[in-house]
Amino acid sequence: MKIVIDMMGADQGSVATVAGVLAFHKNHPDVELFCVGRASELQPLNGVAYIIDAPEVLPMTAGAMDVLRAKNSSVMTSITTMINEKADAIVGAGSTGGFLTALTIKLKLIPGVERAAIIAPFPTKIKGKKVAVLDIGASNENTSSQIVQFAKMGRIYAQKVFGVDEPKTYLLANGAEDEKGTPEIKEANHILRETNFPQFMGNIEGREALEGQVDVLVTGGFAGNIFLKTTEGIAKMMSEMIKKAFKRNVFSKIGYIFANKGFKEMRETMDYKSTGGAMLLGINGVAIKAHGNSDAYGFMSAIEVGYKMAEKNVVALMIEGFKQDA
Amino acid sequence: MKIVIDMMGADQGSVATVAGVLAFHKNHPDVELFCVGRASELQPLNGVAYIIDAPEVLPMTAGAMDVLRAKNSSVMTSITTMINEKADAIVGAGSTGGFLTALTIKLKLIPGVERAAIIAPFPTKIKGKKVAVLDIGASNENTSSQIVQFAKMGRIYAQKVFGVDEPKTYLLANGAEDEKGTPEIKEANHILRETNFPQFMGNIEGREALEGQVDVLVTGGFAGNIFLKTTEGIAKMMSEMIKKAFKRNVFSKIGYIFANKGFKEMRETMDYKSTGGAMLLGINGVAIKAHGNSDAYGFMSAIEVGYKMAEKNVVALMIEGFKQDA
Repeated sequence: MKIVIDMMGADQGSVATVAGVLAFHKNHPDVELFCVGRASELQPLNGVAYIIDAPEVLPMTAGAMDVLRAKNSSVMTSITTMINEKADAIVGAGSTGGFLTALTIKLKLIPGVERAAIIAPFPTKIKGKKVAVLDIGASNENTSSQIVQFAKMGRIYAQKVFGVDEPKTYLLANGAEDEKGTPEIKEANHILRETNFPQFMGNIEGREALEGQVDVLVTGGFAGNIFLKTTEGIAKMMSEMIKKAFKRNVFSKIGYIFANKGFKEMRETMDYKSTGGAMLLGINGVAIKAHGNSDAYGFMSAIEVGYKMAEKNVVALMIEGFKQDA
Repeated sequence: MKIVIDMMGADQGSVATVAGVLAFHKNHPDVELFCVGRASELQPLNGVAYIIDAPEVLPMTAGAMDVLRAKNSSVMTSITTMINEKADAIVGAGSTGGFLTALTIKLKLIPGVERAAIIAPFPTKIKGKKVAVLDIGASNENTSSQIVQFAKMGRIYAQKVFGVDEPKTYLLANGAEDEKGTPEIKEANHILRETNFPQFMGNIEGREALEGQVDVLVTGGFAGNIFLKTTEGIAKMMSEMIKKAFKRNVFSKIGYIFANKGFKEMRETMDYKSTGGAMLLGINGVAIKAHGNSDAYGFMSAIEVGYKMAEKNVVALMIEGFKQDA
C-alpha cells in the first residue's frame, strides 16, 4: 500500500506531522509513505518515507484558486504524487477548501456523485458507538439529490468503517416529522421514502442525534458544519467548566483524584483527536483531511483512517454502489 | 399590567402551570392575570387570576391550520382574550408552530418585519453573560432581508433585556470570513456591512459563539434550530457523563461531595430553565413561548420574561426602530 502525505499546513507545523508519520510507520512498516513538504524539515523521515521536496507552503487562508495556481505547493505536489504513484490514499492538514477543490479537479468525483462531502465519526452517549455525520462542511448549499447521494455514501462508509451491516440513516432537521426542514431536506426525505432507502428512519433533531440510535446522520454542508462546530464548542465549554469546578478548593481537588478515572473515560468518549481525520467522500480516491490543529497523535490517527479506508476498498465499493443505480 | 396565560399544553399539564402562576403572582401581586384553560383544573387560581374557561386543548402535534380552526381552544381563546383585554403580554407552552401562526395572523407583524423570529438567551463561558440567538426555529427558510431584520430586532432586544448599550452582532456561519455561509447569509453579511449596521462584527462559527464576546447571534431559522438543539443535546450528554463518572465507586462519590459546589455553579450557568421562555419577536405584541417541558419554576420564569418585555416596551421600541428605516 502507498500513502501520500502533505506534511505542511498543520497549525503545529512539521514537528507534529513528522512525529505522526514516525508513529504510524512503527505500526505499519510495510506501507510505502510519500512525504511532501520542505525537505529540510523532513530529515527525521530519512529511511522511513520517500521525501518529496515542495518548498511552497500555502497559508490556511488560501482559497481554492490560490491552491490550484500554486503548482509547487505541498498540497498540489501531494496530489500529483498520488496520481503518478497510483497511491492508495492521500492525507493532509491544510486548508479544507483548497484541498477539496484540487482533489475534485485532479482526481475527479465518482460517477453519479455531484458533490464531495466531508464525513467524520462523532461520539455518542453509548460508549464505543459512533455516528457518521456528512456533509460537515464541503458545501455551503446542497440540492436534495446531493443530500440523497450523501445518504448513499454514508451508508457504505458505516458498513465498512463501523462494520454495521444495516446502518440506520437519519436526516438532520428541526423536528422529527417528515415535513420538517428546509425545502431540500423535505425533498430528500421524500426521495428516500419513495425509493425505500434501506433503514432510512426519517428526520432527527440535533438533540437526539448523539443518543446512540443513529449510524449515519445526513445533512447539507452548511447545517452539518454548524452541527460540528457547535458540538465542539459546547464540549470544550463544559470541559473547561468541569476543570474550574475541580479547582475551587483543596476539597474539590481531592474530589478530582477520586472521580478521575470516570472523567478519563468521558474525555476518551468525547475525544475528537482519536477519530483523527475526516474523509472527503465522493472523490475518486481515498482522501483524508486531518484537523488543522492535529498533534502527533492526531496526525497519526488521520493516516490510520486513510490506511483503513484504502484497505477496505471504500472508494471501489462506492463506485460499484453508484453504478448499480445508474 | 395585564398578562394572558395559556395554561394548557405543557408536557407536565396544568399542575406545573398553575404552580408557576401562583409563584409569579407572589412576586407581582399587582399584575392582572388572565388564565385560560380547563376551568376545573384552574380552581387553585381563584382570587389570584381571572379564570377563562376553554375546555378544548390542542395536542403538541397540532399544525398551524388545526390551531386556527380550533376557535375554542385554549391557545385561540388566549389570543382573543389578549386582543379584547388589550393585554400587555401573552405566555403559552403549547405547540410553537400553531402559537406563532395564530399570533402572526391575529396580532399581525410589526410593519417592516416580514417574518417573526424566536429569540432566546443562551449561556456563555463567562458567568452571567448571555448571548441572544435568533431565529431558533420560527422559519425553515429565510431570505437575506429577513436575516437583516432579525439583526435589527436582536439589537433592540439585547439593549433592553441585557442592558448592553452597543451590543455586538454576529452572523452564525461555517467560518469567520465574510464570504462564508449560504447565499442568504453571504448577502445578509454584505447588507449589514454596506449599511454600517452598528457593531456588526461579521461571521462567527458555532464553536466561538458561546465564548462570551457575542451579544446577538443572528441566523436563519433552520440553522438556528440546529444550533439550539445541538447545544441542548451535548449539554445533556455531558451532564449524564459527569453523573456517571461520579457514580463509579465509593471514592468518586466522595469526590462528588467535595466538587459539588463547583458543579452547582456549572449547572446554573447551563440551566435553560432559568431563562424560562423564548420570545416571539416581530409580532405586534409581547408573546412568550415557554418550554413544552416547563416545570413550575420554568413556567414562572417564562411569565417573568413576558413581564420584563412588556415593562421595557420592547415591542413599541421595535415599531419605532423599523419606522425610522422606512
